[in-house]
Amino acid sequence: MSNALHIQKNDHYVTIYNEDFIEKANHLKPELYTTIVKPISIVKVRKNSEVIHGWEVETEAPISALNERKYRKDESFILDFGDHYVGYISMNIRPVGSPPDAPLRLKLTIGEMPVEMAEPFEEYDGWLSSSWLQEETIYVDVLPGKIDLPRRYCFRYIKFEILDTSPKYQVIFENVECKAVTSANIAGVKPLQHTDEMLKRIDKVSIKTLADCMQDVFEDGPKRDRRLWLGDLRLQALADYETFKTKDLVKRCLYLFAGVPDDRGQVTANVFTAPSLIADDTVLYDYSLFFAATLHDYYFATKDITTLKELWPTAYRQIELALARLDNRCIVKDSSDWWSFIDWKDGLNKQTPSQAILIYTMKQAIRLAEVLARPEKDWLEIQLTNTIEGAIKYLWDEQQKFFISGDNRQVSWASQIWMVLADILPFEENKELMNRLLEDKPECGLATPYMYHHLVEALILVDEKEKAISMMKLYWGGMIEDGADTFWELYDPGNKNFSPYGSDLINSYCHAWSCTPTYLIRKYKL
Amino acid sequence: MSNALHIQKNDHYVTIYNEDFIEKANHLKPELYTTIVKPISIVKVRKNSEVIHGWEVETEAPISALNERKYRKDESFILDFGDHYVGYISMNIRPVGSPPDAPLRLKLTIGEMPVEMAEPFEEYDGWLSSSWLQEETIYVDVLPGKIDLPRRYCFRYIKFEILDTSPKYQVIFENVECKAVTSANIAGVKPLQHTDEMLKRIDKVSIKTLADCMQDVFEDGPKRDRRLWLGDLRLQALADYETFKTKDLVKRCLYLFAGVPDDRGQVTANVFTAPSLIADDTVLYDYSLFFAATLHDYYFATKDITTLKELWPTAYRQIELALARLDNRCIVKDSSDWWSFIDWKDGLNKQTPSQAILIYTMKQAIRLAEVLARPEKDWLEIQLTNTIEGAIKYLWDEQQKFFISGDNRQVSWASQIWMVLADILPFEENKELMNRLLEDKPECGLATPYMYHHLVEALILVDEKEKAISMMKLYWGGMIEDGADTFWELYDPGNKNFSPYGSDLINSYCHAWSCTPTYLIRKYKL
Repeated sequence: MSNALHIQKNDHYVTIYNEDFIEKANHLKPELYTTIVKPISIVKVRKNSEVIHGWEVETEAPISALNERKYRKDESFILDFGDHYVGYISMNIRPVGSPPDAPLRLKLTIGEMPVEMAEPFEEYDGWLSSSWLQEETIYVDVLPGKIDLPRRYCFRYIKFEILDTSPKYQVIFENVECKAVTSANIAGVKPLQHTDEMLKRIDKVSIKTLADCMQDVFEDGPKRDRRLWLGDLRLQALADYETFKTKDLVKRCLYLFAGVPDDRGQVTANVFTAPSLIADDTVLYDYSLFFAATLHDYYFATKDITTLKELWPTAYRQIELALARLDNRCIVKDSSDWWSFIDWKDGLNKQTPSQAILIYTMKQAIRLAEVLARPEKDWLEIQLTNTIEGAIKYLWDEQQKFFISGDNRQVSWASQIWMVLADILPFEENKELMNRLLEDKPECGLATPYMYHHLVEALILVDEKEKAISMMKLYWGGMIEDGADTFWELYDPGNKNFSPYGSDLINSYCHAWSCTPTYLIRKYKL
Repeated sequence: MSNALHIQKNDHYVTIYNEDFIEKANHLKPELYTTIVKPISIVKVRKNSEVIHGWEVETEAPISALNERKYRKDESFILDFGDHYVGYISMNIRPVGSPPDAPLRLKLTIGEMPVEMAEPFEEYDGWLSSSWLQEETIYVDVLPGKIDLPRRYCFRYIKFEILDTSPKYQVIFENVECKAVTSANIAGVKPLQHTDEMLKRIDKVSIKTLADCMQDVFEDGPKRDRRLWLGDLRLQALADYETFKTKDLVKRCLYLFAGVPDDRGQVTANVFTAPSLIADDTVLYDYSLFFAATLHDYYFATKDITTLKELWPTAYRQIELALARLDNRCIVKDSSDWWSFIDWKDGLNKQTPSQAILIYTMKQAIRLAEVLARPEKDWLEIQLTNTIEGAIKYLWDEQQKFFISGDNRQVSWASQIWMVLADILPFEENKELMNRLLEDKPECGLATPYMYHHLVEALILVDEKEKAISMMKLYWGGMIEDGADTFWELYDPGNKNFSPYGSDLINSYCHAWSCTPTYLIRKYKL
């Protein structure tokens, strides 16, 4: 196999390519399911300060009216596809009047949310690249003609602005449609039997979110980022096992990560798959550990021992590297220059949640070592004991009855939640800790659906199902009531118009890490 | 043949399709010659009130520097291809830095002249459709990648504006090139042997202009309009016979016009050829007559009697229809609602130049009738005598010694020039008239190279070759000195920044009707 390894360096990052693994991943590239979907109505947007982002859509005419409408320079309209889709947009454009004596210049704005139809992209001044905003200005030289827009889009709405024709002709739009794509077999999912209508709706939107993120790989967001992240993959895989059971896609993604570690053997936080497989130079402490977690979940969902055997060294290596960061107290070293993701929460100290994730994944690795009868198991068990003891000795504040993190002894929700998930306290103490957390509400709270997922799962694990359900309804149900067709990357029920990127336009409104309620509902029979 | 005729109507225009003619035209569709051309330097534009439009380019670096340059958000550069081209643009874009974690958003502005690189298209507010301005904003999702821009462009310069990347990567542009296309066999033209360097330069730029307008049909302007006009075709064909001798392309264009007359048999002023052959609903008195003129010139350039026989009825029909507009004095009726082109000159009365063009083309028709031994010849000769007599009796002002036009007895350059070309006065009187015209300079002058062509040809016909050459050097030589790589649609040596469309950006800087100096120089051995 050493023949199949080669090395690629850029200025500051070295990738070791494992061609055998990459070839395995390539063979598992899925066929996409395609569906032709069509707009359901012509709509307009109007201001409404009562709704999220301040914009709502209102039906202006049924879609059947479109074929009758002639558009000239400076006119515009918005089509509503009725649901969120990922795919390829096409249309026919027919001129009326004299033969077109100048090209048609047409601007298309493609968006997931009403705000994208209402606020001009030109004014976007956020921190992420404006190249994620979905917009096309096209020139049509030959009319009538069929137009295939050049990219894959992620949307529910399309705004058409007729920038110019000529005074001699107008245009009619026909057969506007989207070839929607996903690698999820939507028809294969069993509908949820449940008496609670809101849970059924949450389940359905979760599944739609997951499906729209499932393409050649599990993408984090089909509008923005569009790539495979390990932290998202772990959650998508869990939701997939309960729904589509597209287990080969999880396997493919594991091989993609294992195919491009760095020169120390650490897997990257995310990979690009076009034009060819490329490891990003972002490495996150927790995400690398989640390789082991994802392999663990994959094995217990599939019992695919061949894959487990082949990928075990990669998973084990992540634990080894994570353990190398422990200080002599067996605590994950904190510093100003390391990256562990945990959550987008400003000011969140990452030390204690990272320690918890290390413990959480070591337990999973030990289970895998047991299955494989690997000699590393004993050593892992010693390390586990040490890290748990270290955590209790140095990170638990007996006075506050909370885990603290970092030099400033920060009490964050994330630390408590992950320590409960790591399951190092007795059951009753975990339960008390979770209830104390809900009661005391420490200031350093949760920022993302990703972290809310872990909160809900921790509540379930301490047998507080009702509280878990309430939290899920408050958070994901809140999104639905605020108009979500798919679950959003970001949602703060207390500050609905907040974007950490400086603009609501650039948020991803279909995001992988938000798809987990279907997993929680089905797995734990909520 | 009647089986092959069908009728198509729109609101206000009826076309009779002659499928036999259209099929003949289709069979003559030329193969295009393609050449890969590359930029020669990186340039910048700077203000200079001394030059046309107030902008000039200055070399910033040789093109070899491009591969070394990394561009980030908000940077830009301009490439100069060193000459005017029509074709398809492609490039490779390579990222440097981290793997691209956001698409590249790139704006390309493609122009014939420095002004197009300098003045923002967004501010264009002219009277023609802004859709003619050559601009693309593209999103590149996969890098490195090869980009093929979606349209055919007409240009010398390309401005690249990097609208966005991400902070993690920059881009390098490589292999920027154009697949230049023309149906002209450039290598087949004999170089002009001449002692006058300026005439040699004028000849060369004429030929380049003609070549860039020669595509599937003779186009009027490869940047703007891009279609087959009869008035331009006539002049292009004349220039072609002296240079490329692509006579089948003239034949094809004649069949295209003859293939789609209106329900009275009149040929349109211009046709569209995509998505299929369509007659424009613009009909011009003079342009329809030029069908006969173009057939005449084609026959005498080729002696292709088969085509002449087949297209004679169409040519003859144009004369018949034009004659139907005569009043009982045998003068072309003037009115406020008819269209004869003649020239873009504001306020120009079209009556007398149209009368002259009728006489000019009748004479050609009679020559063709003679070749064909057609019985219509006698009738044409009677009509010719009547229209000449009418012209002299009613349109010649013996006191002013000029032809007058319209109710207001307008003395225009166009009337004198066309009456000299129609050749109804004795040679010496024509010569005196032309000299009187140059001397007296009536106020209603010339607007376009199209009309300047007729001025120069009229001077040649009255044996004022030196004056013809001076005029040609003043006008076409002036364009060259003002930076023309190909001859422009519009040029007023006295008001160089004037655009009849309200903006210099929308002018066509490679225009068919400006290509005739090579014809005049070579045909008349200037």
